[in-house]
Amino acid sequence: MFHSKKVKEECVRWIRDFFDQNGPGCNAIVGISGGKDSSVVAALCVEALGKERVIGVLMPCGVQQDIDMAQLLVDHLGIRHYVINIQEAVEGAKRAMPFELSQQSRTNLPPRIRMSVLYAVAQSHNGRVANTCNLSEDWVGYSTRYGDAAGDFSPCSFLTVQEVKQLGRELGLPDVLVNKVPIDGLCGKTDEENLGFTYEELDRYIRTGVIENQQNKARIDRLHEMNRFKLELMPAFHPELD
Amino acid sequence: MFHSKKVKEECVRWIRDFFDQNGPGCNAIVGISGGKDSSVVAALCVEALGKERVIGVLMPCGVQQDIDMAQLLVDHLGIRHYVINIQEAVEGAKRAMPFELSQQSRTNLPPRIRMSVLYAVAQSHNGRVANTCNLSEDWVGYSTRYGDAAGDFSPCSFLTVQEVKQLGRELGLPDVLVNKVPIDGLCGKTDEENLGFTYEELDRYIRTGVIENQQNKARIDRLHEMNRFKLELMPAFHPELD
Repeated sequence: MFHSKKVKEECVRWIRDFFDQNGPGCNAIVGISGGKDSSVVAALCVEALGKERVIGVLMPCGVQQDIDMAQLLVDHLGIRHYVINIQEAVEGAKRAMPFELSQQSRTNLPPRIRMSVLYAVAQSHNGRVANTCNLSEDWVGYSTRYGDAAGDFSPCSFLTVQEVKQLGRELGLPDVLVNKVPIDGLCGKTDEENLGFTYEELDRYIRTGVIENQQNKARIDRLHEMNRFKLELMPAFHPELD
Repeated sequence: MFHSKKVKEECVRWIRDFFDQNGPGCNAIVGISGGKDSSVVAALCVEALGKERVIGVLMPCGVQQDIDMAQLLVDHLGIRHYVINIQEAVEGAKRAMPFELSQQSRTNLPPRIRMSVLYAVAQSHNGRVANTCNLSEDWVGYSTRYGDAAGDFSPCSFLTVQEVKQLGRELGLPDVLVNKVPIDGLCGKTDEENLGFTYEELDRYIRTGVIENQQNKARIDRLHEMNRFKLELMPAFHPELD
C-alpha cells in the first residue's frame, strides 16, 4: 500500500533536511518539462522550502509543442522561472563535430546541454539542482547519463510512475499535468508504445515481483540489466599498493 | 613504494577487462587537453586496446594556447583524433541565459559542454568515455561535477599526481607532457599557486597521513570535506513502504 499523504510528508521533510545540511538558504533549481515528474518535484520543493526558494527552468529546443504545460505549472505554483532556449547551444555543438552524428547521439545531446544550463542557473543563483527521474523510467534505462539523470538531490527516483502520480494528486496539481502521457519528442510515439509494456505492468513488477506476460518480463529484465550501470558510480582502477 | 611497471600492467589489464565486460570491440574516447592526465590515460588505453581503438578529442574553446601539446600527444601515440571547438556551443548557451552568469558558472560551463561533446563522439563511434581525473585533484575538488568528472571508466582517479607522472615516464611519454605544469586557464595561475600547497605535499598526506604544515593540513581537510559529495552518487529520497 502506498500512503500518498505520508510519503509526501516524508519526502518534503527529506528535501528540507537535504537543504539544511547541504545548502541552508539555497534555492532548488528544477528543469520543468511540463510532465508529471518535474511538476511533482517542483511542487514538493515548494512545500519544503517555500515558493521563493524554487526556480523553474523551461528549456525548449527551438519550438516545443507542449511548452504551455510547463508554463501552466510555474503559474500554478507561482514560482520564479526562466525560459532558456537550448537550440543555439545544441546546433553550435553539432556544427563543430566533423562527422555524421548517430541517432543515439542526437537524442542524448539536448539532455546533456540542458544539464549544463541547469547547473549554470544553479551556480548563478545559489542553487542546488533537483533530479526529476522516477524509479520506473530509471529501472528500464529511460534517462540520459550525465543529462537528465544528473542532479544534486533526487526526490522521486525511488518512486514508481503510479506513485509519482498519486503524489501529484496529493499535492493538488492540475489533472492535465499529472495525467500527461509522456511522448518521445523524436518519433511521436508514447513511452509505452516504445517500451512494449505499460508502466502499470512495470510498476507492479517492481513493487511485487508479479508479472503475467513472460515476454514482457524478459524484456524488462533485459533492459534493467543493460542500463543498471547508469545508476552506479563509474568503475575505477584501484592500484594495489604495498 | 609505488612500482610503476607493476601498476601500469595492472591498469592496462583492468582497462582491457572493462572493455571485455562492458563493450567488447568498443573504442576508448579520451578528451585530450595536452596535460599529463589525459596523456597517461590515452597511452594506457593504447596499450590495453591497441591504437586503432583509441580516439582522442581535442576541445579548445576558441583559441587554446597550448593546443600544440595535445597535438604532440596524439601524434606521439599515432591515434585518430578530432578537433572540436566548443566555443559556438558555449557562447550559444550563454546568450540564451537571461541573467548575469557568476564567475563559478562561467568556469564550469565549458567542462560540461566538453562532456556533452565527448559523449556525442562516443555515441557516434561505438565508444566508451574515459575519465581523466586523478586522486589528488579529486581529493580537493579540482573537477567539475558532470563535466570532466564524468566518464564510463576511470583509470587514474585512485592515483596521485606523483603516481600519474611515474606512469607517464613508464609509458615513455615525452617529458614535456609528463612535467607540464597545470595552469588555470582563467587567471593564469598554476594549480599549486591557487591551492596554496604543492601536489607533492598533498600526495604524501594522502598516501601516508603525514604533513608538517598544519595550516595546509587544515586547508586540505576542509577542501576534501567540502568536495566529497562530487565523488558520490547524489542523495535520493527512499520512501518507507508497508
